[in-house]
Amino acid sequence: MSITTIGFDADDTLWHNETFFRLTQQRFVELLSDSDPLHLTKRLEAAERRNLGRYGFGIKGFILSMIETAIEVTEGRVAAPVIAEILAAGRDMLSHPVDLLTHARDTVATLAAHHRVVLITKGDLLDQERKLAQSGLGDLFHGVEIVSDKTPAIYQTAFARHGARPAQAAMVGNSLKSDVLPALAVGAWGIYVPHDLIWSYEKAEPPIDAARFRAISDLAALPALIAELKNTP
Amino acid sequence: MSITTIGFDADDTLWHNETFFRLTQQRFVELLSDSDPLHLTKRLEAAERRNLGRYGFGIKGFILSMIETAIEVTEGRVAAPVIAEILAAGRDMLSHPVDLLTHARDTVATLAAHHRVVLITKGDLLDQERKLAQSGLGDLFHGVEIVSDKTPAIYQTAFARHGARPAQAAMVGNSLKSDVLPALAVGAWGIYVPHDLIWSYEKAEPPIDAARFRAISDLAALPALIAELKNTP
Repeated sequence: MSITTIGFDADDTLWHNETFFRLTQQRFVELLSDSDPLHLTKRLEAAERRNLGRYGFGIKGFILSMIETAIEVTEGRVAAPVIAEILAAGRDMLSHPVDLLTHARDTVATLAAHHRVVLITKGDLLDQERKLAQSGLGDLFHGVEIVSDKTPAIYQTAFARHGARPAQAAMVGNSLKSDVLPALAVGAWGIYVPHDLIWSYEKAEPPIDAARFRAISDLAALPALIAELKNTP
Repeated sequence: MSITTIGFDADDTLWHNETFFRLTQQRFVELLSDSDPLHLTKRLEAAERRNLGRYGFGIKGFILSMIETAIEVTEGRVAAPVIAEILAAGRDMLSHPVDLLTHARDTVATLAAHHRVVLITKGDLLDQERKLAQSGLGDLFHGVEIVSDKTPAIYQTAFARHGARPAQAAMVGNSLKSDVLPALAVGAWGIYVPHDLIWSYEKAEPPIDAARFRAISDLAALPALIAELKNTP
């Protein structure tokens, strides 16, 4: 089986991301310390999900949902300086330095030598571009796809743009829901590299019965796995 | 001279856009009626420009800049329900129906028969996709590029993706700054179709000395202009 094209998720697959969301959420909880932290977190998650169809994925929508939640839980009594703090926390997220995960660079570089490697990520367009630029990995990729959502159709199109039928492609990422399942759905390989922090929205059951599902604990194991898959009948 | 590829801007070239920003800005001014409207508008414009490098173009950044400005001009005294109104105004913008400009559909359809037509737009990824889907024009385009900014390099890449050298391509839009000048800079044709409303950021001087600059008052004149340019030595 020839694997010609490898898609990489970015956030929490190549560089840290969820940790910045968690730190900001913690700051949010501290700012609204009159509210029960658990209740507050649940309301924020509900707002994020409710707004996903309008705001899409990414930091700007997260900031807007935090502001909305702050107003809601205080029944309109939150003081403007608290909102200003939320805005500032959002701006900090949008300028946090990119912190590569261990082996991200080596792994992409190794695979790029003999495959088409494509970054496939969702979130705010400008923010994802900024992180890629700061990561120093930009030159390694043959293509970059910043998409509004990760659907089976998106993977089919992205792989085709690089000359691969799904059976010739593998998608690598830390989200079963966004990286693995939709890639498997079109007949590509889905390679799961878990990260210890994951946003509740991205959780899903592992597709243990899927023939093309694989899991590795670390990106360092990816080149050997890809070599092995090529010898799989 | 063979023109094989035509790029179309979207907002205020194919469908109304600035009018929704103006209406929301008017609602914003009314919400903060203790402040001088002119001063308020200037502060909002300054916030938008200041935040452009972080938020990029689009409605979500506009909402965040309105909230920031409301807090600033009131020196932190704005009441949360006013912020809630700004959030609601933003959500309304993100779900406003798409209102095509006259001749948009006919013009794109006519040119699509014998050219590669490509939509090249900036703004929030999901919002631009939503508007394209609602416009009903999606099937006419051979390609869609939603970009974080409209630079000369972006045009070069977008035209190349459709097999055109810049000299074989024309970019059509209502913004001299974003549609016309950067396209001219790489050697493509830049065709200006002014719209009566334009965001101050997008204003620029017409490049009257540029050989490949053209202006038309209405999209209906575009097919004839493209035919004429093909006969230009």
